[in-house]
Amino acid sequence: MIVTLHVCITCRPGQTLGEGEITPGARLHAAILDAGVPDGVVVPVECLSACNQGGSVALSAPGRWSYVYGRLSDGNAHDVIAGASAYAAAPDGIVPWRSRPEIFRKQSLARIPPIAALPEAAE
Amino acid sequence: MIVTLHVCITCRPGQTLGEGEITPGARLHAAILDAGVPDGVVVPVECLSACNQGGSVALSAPGRWSYVYGRLSDGNAHDVIAGASAYAAAPDGIVPWRSRPEIFRKQSLARIPPIAALPEAAE
Repeated sequence: MIVTLHVCITCRPGQTLGEGEITPGARLHAAILDAGVPDGVVVPVECLSACNQGGSVALSAPGRWSYVYGRLSDGNAHDVIAGASAYAAAPDGIVPWRSRPEIFRKQSLARIPPIAALPEAAE
Repeated sequence: MIVTLHVCITCRPGQTLGEGEITPGARLHAAILDAGVPDGVVVPVECLSACNQGGSVALSAPGRWSYVYGRLSDGNAHDVIAGASAYAAAPDGIVPWRSRPEIFRKQSLARIPPIAALPEAAE
């Protein structure tokens, strides 16, 4: 299963950045790429509208729960990658609680159930 | 397009509930059903892991951005329904900013991009 790890690079929770200074979210994104993204994980960037709780990341894949985590910094890059790898490796995307990195256990912003394949309403 | 409005009924942000007392999330869910759910919106319940920011709801549909909102109470039921209806009616699920209820503009917890239809990696 290929899973998507979205990283918000515009997050600047409560910070005023100087000219040319990069955001904490952009630093986290760079640190994740530096650390090496494992096979099966793709890392696009996108604003995740969790601005007050950034840096933030989201994990999603077809037919699986999506997860959003926040209050992350570049120092969390390795744990984010470990958590994304475990999500990718779990057959249903549900990683046992104790196998999740601590930041995933304690810094959840939200999770969204898989999108149901619902029939369109009859016209 | 049929869209899903998940409501977390276990949310009890910072509150200790007495025996038999129902959660703010459950009250929000009841208020939404009482107010009348429009055609095209389905309302399952599920814990959304946004426990510190509840009551919380999530909007999702195939091929669309998903949105999570928090710090909601039963008094927000009509606005939640209005926002869900606008999401269902927008051809791509993206409702113009000014057309969103204030709670959706100010109480976003997160949004997640549509899940990309990615090819499986070659074995």
